Amino acid sequence: MSSYKFECLNVSISPSGVAHVEISRPEALNAFNTQTWTEIGQCFTRFKVDGDVRSVVLSASGRMFTAGLDLKEAMTGPLSKPRDPDADVARKGYYHRLFILDFQSAISAVESCDKPVVVVVQGGCLGIGIDLISACDVRIATEDAYFMVKEVDIGMAADIGTLQRLPKIVGNDSWVREVCYTARKVTSKEAHFVGLVSNVHATTAEAMKAASDIAETIAAKSPVAIVSTKHLLNYSRDHSVREGLEYTALWNTLAHNSHDMATAIVSSLKRQPAHFPKL
Amino acid sequence: MSSYKFECLNVSISPSGVAHVEISRPEALNAFNTQTWTEIGQCFTRFKVDGDVRSVVLSASGRMFTAGLDLKEAMTGPLSKPRDPDADVARKGYYHRLFILDFQSAISAVESCDKPVVVVVQGGCLGIGIDLISACDVRIATEDAYFMVKEVDIGMAADIGTLQRLPKIVGNDSWVREVCYTARKVTSKEAHFVGLVSNVHATTAEAMKAASDIAETIAAKSPVAIVSTKHLLNYSRDHSVREGLEYTALWNTLAHNSHDMATAIVSSLKRQPAHFPKL
Amino acid sequence: MSSYKFECLNVSISPSGVAHVEISRPEALNAFNTQTWTEIGQCFTRFKVDGDVRSVVLSASGRMFTAGLDLKEAMTGPLSKPRDPDADVARKGYYHRLFILDFQSAISAVESCDKPVVVVVQGGCLGIGIDLISACDVRIATEDAYFMVKEVDIGMAADIGTLQRLPKIVGNDSWVREVCYTARKVTSKEAHFVGLVSNVHATTAEAMKAASDIAETIAAKSPVAIVSTKHLLNYSRDHSVREGLEYTALWNTLAHNSHDMATAIVSSLKRQPAHFPKL
Amino acid sequence: MSSYKFECLNVSISPSGVAHVEISRPEALNAFNTQTWTEIGQCFTRFKVDGDVRSVVLSASGRMFTAGLDLKEAMTGPLSKPRDPDADVARKGYYHRLFILDFQSAISAVESCDKPVVVVVQGGCLGIGIDLISACDVRIATEDAYFMVKEVDIGMAADIGTLQRLPKIVGNDSWVREVCYTARKVTSKEAHFVGLVSNVHATTAEAMKAASDIAETIAAKSPVAIVSTKHLLNYSRDHSVREGLEYTALWNTLAHNSHDMATAIVSSLKRQPAHFPKL
Amino acid sequence: MSSYKFECLNVSISPSGVAHVEISRPEALNAFNTQTWTEIGQCFTRFKVDGDVRSVVLSASGRMFTAGLDLKEAMTGPLSKPRDPDADVARKGYYHRLFILDFQSAISAVESCDKPVVVVVQGGCLGIGIDLISACDVRIATEDAYFMVKEVDIGMAADIGTLQRLPKIVGNDSWVREVCYTARKVTSKEAHFVGLVSNVHATTAEAMKAASDIAETIAAKSPVAIVSTKHLLNYSRDHSVREGLEYTALWNTLAHNSHDMATAIVSSLKRQPAHFPKL
Amino acid sequence: MSSYKFECLNVSISPSGVAHVEISRPEALNAFNTQTWTEIGQCFTRFKVDGDVRSVVLSASGRMFTAGLDLKEAMTGPLSKPRDPDADVARKGYYHRLFILDFQSAISAVESCDKPVVVVVQGGCLGIGIDLISACDVRIATEDAYFMVKEVDIGMAADIGTLQRLPKIVGNDSWVREVCYTARKVTSKEAHFVGLVSNVHATTAEAMKAASDIAETIAAKSPVAIVSTKHLLNYSRDHSVREGLEYTALWNTLAHNSHDMATAIVSSLKRQPAHFPKL
Repeated sequence: MSSYKFECLNVSISPSGVAHVEISRPEALNAFNTQTWTEIGQCFTRFKVDGDVRSVVLSASGRMFTAGLDLKEAMTGPLSKPRDPDADVARKGYYHRLFILDFQSAISAVESCDKPVVVVVQGGCLGIGIDLISACDVRIATEDAYFMVKEVDIGMAADIGTLQRLPKIVGNDSWVREVCYTARKVTSKEAHFVGLVSNVHATTAEAMKAASDIAETIAAKSPVAIVSTKHLLNYSRDHSVREGLEYTALWNTLAHNSHDMATAIVSSLKRQPAHFPKL
Repeated sequence: MSSYKFECLNVSISPSGVAHVEISRPEALNAFNTQTWTEIGQCFTRFKVDGDVRSVVLSASGRMFTAGLDLKEAMTGPLSKPRDPDADVARKGYYHRLFILDFQSAISAVESCDKPVVVVVQGGCLGIGIDLISACDVRIATEDAYFMVKEVDIGMAADIGTLQRLPKIVGNDSWVREVCYTARKVTSKEAHFVGLVSNVHATTAEAMKAASDIAETIAAKSPVAIVSTKHLLNYSRDHSVREGLEYTALWNTLAHNSHDMATAIVSSLKRQPAHFPKL
Repeated sequence: MSSYKFECLNVSISPSGVAHVEISRPEALNAFNTQTWTEIGQCFTRFKVDGDVRSVVLSASGRMFTAGLDLKEAMTGPLSKPRDPDADVARKGYYHRLFILDFQSAISAVESCDKPVVVVVQGGCLGIGIDLISACDVRIATEDAYFMVKEVDIGMAADIGTLQRLPKIVGNDSWVREVCYTARKVTSKEAHFVGLVSNVHATTAEAMKAASDIAETIAAKSPVAIVSTKHLLNYSRDHSVREGLEYTALWNTLAHNSHDMATAIVSSLKRQPAHFPKL
Repeated sequence: MSSYKFECLNVSISPSGVAHVEISRPEALNAFNTQTWTEIGQCFTRFKVDGDVRSVVLSASGRMFTAGLDLKEAMTGPLSKPRDPDADVARKGYYHRLFILDFQSAISAVESCDKPVVVVVQGGCLGIGIDLISACDVRIATEDAYFMVKEVDIGMAADIGTLQRLPKIVGNDSWVREVCYTARKVTSKEAHFVGLVSNVHATTAEAMKAASDIAETIAAKSPVAIVSTKHLLNYSRDHSVREGLEYTALWNTLAHNSHDMATAIVSSLKRQPAHFPKL
Repeated sequence: MSSYKFECLNVSISPSGVAHVEISRPEALNAFNTQTWTEIGQCFTRFKVDGDVRSVVLSASGRMFTAGLDLKEAMTGPLSKPRDPDADVARKGYYHRLFILDFQSAISAVESCDKPVVVVVQGGCLGIGIDLISACDVRIATEDAYFMVKEVDIGMAADIGTLQRLPKIVGNDSWVREVCYTARKVTSKEAHFVGLVSNVHATTAEAMKAASDIAETIAAKSPVAIVSTKHLLNYSRDHSVREGLEYTALWNTLAHNSHDMATAIVSSLKRQPAHFPKL
Repeated sequence: MSSYKFECLNVSISPSGVAHVEISRPEALNAFNTQTWTEIGQCFTRFKVDGDVRSVVLSASGRMFTAGLDLKEAMTGPLSKPRDPDADVARKGYYHRLFILDFQSAISAVESCDKPVVVVVQGGCLGIGIDLISACDVRIATEDAYFMVKEVDIGMAADIGTLQRLPKIVGNDSWVREVCYTARKVTSKEAHFVGLVSNVHATTAEAMKAASDIAETIAAKSPVAIVSTKHLLNYSRDHSVREGLEYTALWNTLAHNSHDMATAIVSSLKRQPAHFPKL
């Protein structure tokens, strides 16, 4: 477990295989500095190859999920470098592009870890927070939660995943574009109506309970079936139906060798619970 | 009509061009064995080149739409072969992949037949049932209908189309992923809220009536316009807007030669009904 | 401003950078003849390179948004040419395909102009009207508005964008296909439920006010952030998440050089309004 | 073996697993009528699932490989149907497109059969002959062989594979385009210079011997390794390097389970020949 | 013919349908300024819809094909704008990108005009000259010709087509990359060996004769067959074989309606020359 | 420089910016074990962000370039794991796929490092050696060099890049497929004829001299121009011409800001050498 010690994240893994990740920078309303997103990348990259982790609940401590990008760091840190007048635009650009790609890669680790991630949003979820929850699988909110695609208000287009994923997870493009251009506040009720979140709960405790229930349910399934399902959903989103089917056929040609199928079918026919070894 | 004699399907075609396909394995709650999906593939492949068919209503007999995969066959039939310990994994895998592709191809025939398919779901629709209805065009349910993406409960990822099509027909990814990971029961009311079904009706008879009405409306239109619309919707789903537009321009360069356009426009201007010959 | 004089369009640009485009062919219920769509193409192509334009409100005059294609022209104009029996089908087809591509290109200019477009629909919006509003960013309707994907009723598949964009802006494929095959009337209430429009207002005046408010909000943001956001949303819709992220990283490597970011962050930290020069 | 009885093809399979397919319509200089290409499709489709076949030598009897399309059939058969003035262009087009796709599919079966195909060309190879040999893996010619992309001389663009595959198998686009536009005669010497054929031999017997030697060499390798290599070369041609690598990784995750690897490595270390069971 | 009057181009069209385009800026060794590439774009865009043009010979006057980009203009013209220190990098970048896209579009018009273009290179062909000839169909050189991918020597990557097309027209990537990184001189002999040019002729007159012969041969074919072949080669280059075949099937479903096929086949069977009306 | 200390690689960087990487496992004929390819991945990943490196010469010590995969490790190391009969095929497969992806990623670092790599092959270059040199930019061989795509002889398809890259760097598919299926020996002369290598030199010293000359030439150019050219060649290989052009336009919108262009053009006009600061 020592491998999950972080500065900005609290991580615990239950015996049943549910990892709980809590973002915790209370002094800054969980604003994302480089340390925060670097740790998220490291944490979920490890989850991918950790058989003890079967599903994940992601949440944040304090009164809001995240205030978004750490603006103080943004003024003096890596994000400010392109505006340095003393360097050749093309040269600094070469390295700045790699910096953005690294940032993206850290958030995309949530998607590519293959273990389903249920996220709970309380209070505000701003800017990079939307990038992050868009990379999760299931989104649950509290009644007091609100959402803002805040990037235009700091003079830039969102570049860590919101513009790629939000339109593919919410089937209301008119709404997506309006909130991306205006940065206006979206209530959890509205978020539920458009499908950004699956459920809204009165309190954080209830929302956490609902998220944990889903994660526990997932953790009890065959991990072969679960990681295959997440991996194939991600692949298929980005390919034609025909290519998705062909890749899936190849993937399952391997996965059908698993003993989990026989175990599951026999249990199902006997109407008994099945137990599946870890990945 | 003799060409539509099947063991597991009842098929009839109305003079107006609406084909009614009823899945009928009452002894097994319409569970899908190899015979069932093979016949679905054959039936819809014929529809594609049968000018007498202009639209299709698909339904199932008995108290549920389908219990999903036939688990008894799954334990001893083709699906069980990869778990045979006596064969070289790569060799049996070579053929098993082709088996999955064949299975997929049969269900995809519903999509590629070019004639719109309206499906009515009553009772339960489990596992492969979701793969099937996802390949249809319009989904209608009864109040007692429920839906389960059941595959993880038999230890595998859905591989016949659900993971490819469900996220592209329902614009609520949080919901899609939750039901794919948990296999939980979804009521017809919830299915309507998220957009999996267009309408919910109190009884099977009412749902069938609604489906037939839609199918009859479609059958009365120009078949050139209808098959073009379905074909182009499918093509465009899997391509960029730019590529979809270019392909559509080429397709309609041919289709605009049809006399149906003049017939339809004249009828429209005269506010008279138009009659279009079969394809 | 003289460059925005058109026959079928009224165009004005506010000092804040909101362009108002009104389709105006009152004698024909705003039916689209070649002149109309040619002018739309010209107008939005100019918007792209006009720094004075930061966002657009698109509307139509009179009692309905548009009756769709101008059927009289369709009987004798370019659209009727393929049915000319005196010409070689392949030869006339070579030029007819280019005609369709030009038509598509004009409507796609709304999408590719990079400035967000908010459209207000009152009365009926038929046929080509759906192609047009699908290429806009945000859709607002009046209570009396109704929508019809009317093309099958003139014997053809929609070919100017509806079949490409509608399924990607509305996350309810069952509904999309039903209305594309049946050409049935959709009320503004139903359009709101499925997500075709973001909001419904009692009167045209209220809808126009709501659209203008959104457009003004957008016009007050950094134009670098706004055009980047629209451009990247369009790019990402048509690419995998991975490709969308890579392109976005490159785009923002350039855009992060803008002084707007510092201006915006400083204003944000000081909680003061920011002012951004035009593009 | 009875399954390989054809009218226009002579097929035999050696004990070592090399199938010899000889096109034989001597009365028509091996011109391709519907029967011929239908049989090619059937033959290679069977090869795909026939473990007794490990590699293929394709040749043609008589003084030339093929005169191309059977022009007599072309004047009255399926290819002539679009020019029938009595039918609606769009309706007959709907079925004619399916006819072309079937024709393409038959020739593509050579590519998709997964067993490497070495083709020997003697005398002339015209029109559809180029489509066919472009779908083969290795091309060998006799000194008297010549090649003509003949389709423009019958008033049409090649549509069975030449325009797709020739530019991807010959790295000299200037040459490819010249011969596709002019239909001029290409000698076997020129074909060797540009890379259309790997080798040129003085006589048909020598060319057949060279082809058989290659096919026998292939048949002695692990069939898992061979079909994997062909399948992955085809997949990778049509995808980015990144996608090709990812698909290959998945494919080999399955294939590395084969005992052939251990057999081959041990034999290699011991410098002994290895024997591999059929697929 | 008045529509082909240009400052930097001499254009003539023969009665047989061969257009001759000569680049002529003798005072500047045919260096490309904005006027030159703008006219190339205009000229070939018109060729696309001019039935009198069936094929094109492109050449340049004077002692070399082109010295490449006009460096004097490059120091003060549009290309120099991004280095203007007085403007916001993102704002000027927004417009500069559109400038590059316009430049690319002009050269790509050679490719997209659908009529085959045979180019003759004499003397040097530098920088943008390589972009241009890579967009042509057939390349012919004189013995004294030499080639240089010169862009790195002006501190930039080639951006008008060389890096996209050169590796797809020459099947020797080691050579392509070496000449793109080093900008070294390539003789016509070497260009022939690697396949950049199809033929090398002793004198410009002989090279022009050879080019004209090819162009005349093409002009005598069915223009339906010729434009289809070029269009489909371009489409297929940029798509998978499967997608190329499907698009080709649709295209030829239309083209097979042409009377040219019957004309050509009858002429072929009678061994008489055929005459085809213009497009 | 301490960051380039490796067990299996000798690395030095000249003041002019040419890195020399020598593979050195003399005790094993430079066979690739995990250590070797891991170090190659690390080395080239660092090159990407090391401004002191402008181009690379890659070679190997001893009498042959590489004997290919380290077969002893292959029998007991990670590659042998899928054949472990004691583990669930799907579970071990999950991790084995990640292992192959890591291996691929290490070799692909040669391609993605953005600095051109010139490789010198002496003696034999087998199996993984072909994967490696295919990821390089320019290939140079000695007369005694030979090449073998050896993977089928160890019972598997090449999976580290050969099947993806070889057909795209050599424009002779008949040859590519033959050598991939037969694993036969290819001389340097044949390799030169088909374009696998650009040049053949009598001795290793001469080949190294030629490689160094090319690398030095590259190192003297604008590093902005060079990394842009390599990056864009790689991007364009994997995209359509249209997409390659659009990405290039965006890339150069940034790169045109570099002072290198003015420096280079002024030097070019003055016919003086230019000096460019490091990236």
